[in-house]
Amino acid sequence: MLKKIAFQFKQWFPATEEVSAHCDGPCGVYDPSAARITAEAVLSMTKKLVDLETPSASDKAASIAYHNTFARYVAIKEEQAQKTKEDLLILWTDYFKPVHLEKYPDLHDTFLKAAKLCSSCKVEVSVQHATELLEAVHKIHQMFWETKNRDITWYKANP
Amino acid sequence: MLKKIAFQFKQWFPATEEVSAHCDGPCGVYDPSAARITAEAVLSMTKKLVDLETPSASDKAASIAYHNTFARYVAIKEEQAQKTKEDLLILWTDYFKPVHLEKYPDLHDTFLKAAKLCSSCKVEVSVQHATELLEAVHKIHQMFWETKNRDITWYKANP
Amino acid sequence: MLKKIAFQFKQWFPATEEVSAHCDGPCGVYDPSAARITAEAVLSMTKKLVDLETPSASDKAASIAYHNTFARYVAIKEEQAQKTKEDLLILWTDYFKPVHLEKYPDLHDTFLKAAKLCSSCKVEVSVQHATELLEAVHKIHQMFWETKNRDITWYKANP
Amino acid sequence: MLKKIAFQFKQWFPATEEVSAHCDGPCGVYDPSAARITAEAVLSMTKKLVDLETPSASDKAASIAYHNTFARYVAIKEEQAQKTKEDLLILWTDYFKPVHLEKYPDLHDTFLKAAKLCSSCKVEVSVQHATELLEAVHKIHQMFWETKNRDITWYKANP
Amino acid sequence: MLKKIAFQFKQWFPATEEVSAHCDGPCGVYDPSAARITAEAVLSMTKKLVDLETPSASDKAASIAYHNTFARYVAIKEEQAQKTKEDLLILWTDYFKPVHLEKYPDLHDTFLKAAKLCSSCKVEVSVQHATELLEAVHKIHQMFWETKNRDITWYKANP
Amino acid sequence: MLKKIAFQFKQWFPATEEVSAHCDGPCGVYDPSAARITAEAVLSMTKKLVDLETPSASDKAASIAYHNTFARYVAIKEEQAQKTKEDLLILWTDYFKPVHLEKYPDLHDTFLKAAKLCSSCKVEVSVQHATELLEAVHKIHQMFWETKNRDITWYKANP
Repeated sequence: MLKKIAFQFKQWFPATEEVSAHCDGPCGVYDPSAARITAEAVLSMTKKLVDLETPSASDKAASIAYHNTFARYVAIKEEQAQKTKEDLLILWTDYFKPVHLEKYPDLHDTFLKAAKLCSSCKVEVSVQHATELLEAVHKIHQMFWETKNRDITWYKANP
Repeated sequence: MLKKIAFQFKQWFPATEEVSAHCDGPCGVYDPSAARITAEAVLSMTKKLVDLETPSASDKAASIAYHNTFARYVAIKEEQAQKTKEDLLILWTDYFKPVHLEKYPDLHDTFLKAAKLCSSCKVEVSVQHATELLEAVHKIHQMFWETKNRDITWYKANP
Repeated sequence: MLKKIAFQFKQWFPATEEVSAHCDGPCGVYDPSAARITAEAVLSMTKKLVDLETPSASDKAASIAYHNTFARYVAIKEEQAQKTKEDLLILWTDYFKPVHLEKYPDLHDTFLKAAKLCSSCKVEVSVQHATELLEAVHKIHQMFWETKNRDITWYKANP
Repeated sequence: MLKKIAFQFKQWFPATEEVSAHCDGPCGVYDPSAARITAEAVLSMTKKLVDLETPSASDKAASIAYHNTFARYVAIKEEQAQKTKEDLLILWTDYFKPVHLEKYPDLHDTFLKAAKLCSSCKVEVSVQHATELLEAVHKIHQMFWETKNRDITWYKANP
Repeated sequence: MLKKIAFQFKQWFPATEEVSAHCDGPCGVYDPSAARITAEAVLSMTKKLVDLETPSASDKAASIAYHNTFARYVAIKEEQAQKTKEDLLILWTDYFKPVHLEKYPDLHDTFLKAAKLCSSCKVEVSVQHATELLEAVHKIHQMFWETKNRDITWYKANP
Repeated sequence: MLKKIAFQFKQWFPATEEVSAHCDGPCGVYDPSAARITAEAVLSMTKKLVDLETPSASDKAASIAYHNTFARYVAIKEEQAQKTKEDLLILWTDYFKPVHLEKYPDLHDTFLKAAKLCSSCKVEVSVQHATELLEAVHKIHQMFWETKNRDITWYKANP
């Protein structure tokens, strides 16, 4: 099936070499670090939401502060999860080529799972899913740099 | 392989029914018409760019008008192709489920091809690729409504 | 009064035919479906907000999940109501011409009411106003296609 | 006809006082200065585009610089005209009330003309239309502050 | 130290006059009114958040309305504080030149403090900090117009 | 002077430790890699713009392709330079504290110069300034990780 996909792509885009040379993003500058930074922010916001202390109902000022912080953390989590999704989808649809699909048969599943984890991290306040999202980005980091034959160390900004 | 994917998904997201009930977009309102409208705009802008008459080099006012129009049409084409891509990717990553992958084995390829056509329509000024993009959206329209057992007529706003 | 407006427009924009031929959006591709999809999302989110079950105050995890979902639904409702407003205003200011105003004397009111309903749907969580917004879009759908002498069936993505 | 509109509004939004008290923007802070600043930028960019000196065809570096500057100025003009349009439409649909329509019978036309001038300023590189747009904002400035019984001096940031 | 900075700038950007003539924003149209309008909105939203009446826990409709309004006000406060920050930073990095730094030795601190107040107004629901932000914008208004030798009256849209 | 600034900050924000613990971005996740990736894209786009071959005036299709590509590269350069500026300004206004200013007396100048280089890279098509921007980000990378006592290797995605 994978050979068939590679074959079809050559039919669809006969001048594929030329097309990939003029990619629709900032050509040649792909780096999963962007997705790693935003996925770290998703995990950070998720942990902070879980750790927020519920104010006593009678303390109005504390209640206002709590709901202000809660709403902002949810919005930041949403935005960062969305950016993670967009950055991963750019790698998926623009960087990776049929030749990579032959080498990594689980390429589609890896990205689809990561994209769905981005959605889960918006829908839920789940430290588990946010941790899994960061692990999914780690896996993509390794696949990505392997295709470039480069040895780039994985690190976290917020270890 | 497809069964394996469906199996894996159930492992990844055991509470999958519950998750899909709280989807990360405006739940339950999916419609490929959004992608059709923007793909039509891509085709319209592409045709207009091809048809723009080059001004004579000595007519400064005509030259300014030409370059203003050209720059605006390219920017609108870019924006509309990007929106088409985003709308298609939402259908791909959020609406379609493993069960659909079993029914439409070329689901991934259809969407990946459509996404790559969005990129081509940005990179190039190609009436052929813009027409193919609209056809790809038509194909997705048919798959989509088939999964819902609904008979929605395909039409173009700008026939 | 309407004749006066039409007359004034011809004074303001003497080359009006030419101007309308180079409209400032993706020329020629207008379709109220875009506003219908986002108005459906507003109604869907509004219903879901009304139906959300309040968690017991002592269940902290349920409370976090509730507030996360509530904040996200409000944000999606806001965004979709805003997009509806923008799409309707594009039809109003760009598509419709003085000649239409002569045929539909309540054109301005129809659009102003629809725009104000978009605002109400942000300000409130009102199933009634969200339903009225969708009906206003339906009315605009009928006026719009009538001006084009085309018979496009009204449907809902989420019936 | 205007009385009819005012009457209809009271039917549509019986709790209209309450609704206007919870406006969908940052309540109570309306100021046409925002539209004035962006309209000034539209005029400034338009003048600069007209004044740009065409490079000699044989000077490649000058040609690159020229096209870079031209593309940026068009994009800034587009963005500023769009912001002007949005700010004016917020005043139109959110601030002004039926009672104002009774006092200013040409309210709708003033705003519709200003909105159409925003579009013209995108479509064209016209110093005349950009100047008329700024004059339209001036007229709205005067109507607006008159409704508030305040005497706010009109000035230009870039006289 | 300030002379050193001015000297370094001339080394970094020898053609500095030329560069400042082609500024990266809409050249020549700077006006702190934009930041004043958004800072007023921050203050307005902050006051409204403090004044919102907590609904009784047993009144579900009132509770939904309260949380909808609260979430929207926080989002508007966030957006307006962010816009204030952006507008101030444009003045700081684009408008002000080394020559101004010589005249206003506390230029950097004034802007850095104002930028940090924007952040505080997001993080907190503090009428005090929102009031201080508006005062900081007032101070910048006075410095700005002084550099232009113009006498522009400070006013508030929402006094 | 620096001690005075640090002293003033303590006056302005007495509860400064508390404020910095609730920073207005995704707390704790700062990484200059984001600015490095976008600065690399600015350099890449700048080089590609310089290298684009001017089509012969008589070849209309080549001319359309050239202007489409040119306009897109300028837009991508603009967007990436803007993102670089925003990411650097977040580090400047949110991450760095008075205590850092004491250690790095040229902190303000380093960031102001980098911000001005972002503007230059928009205004011009200059390989030299784009290279200097990347070097400025490199310098900030080193200062940043030094403040965290971490040894993070600098690399380029597109060496």
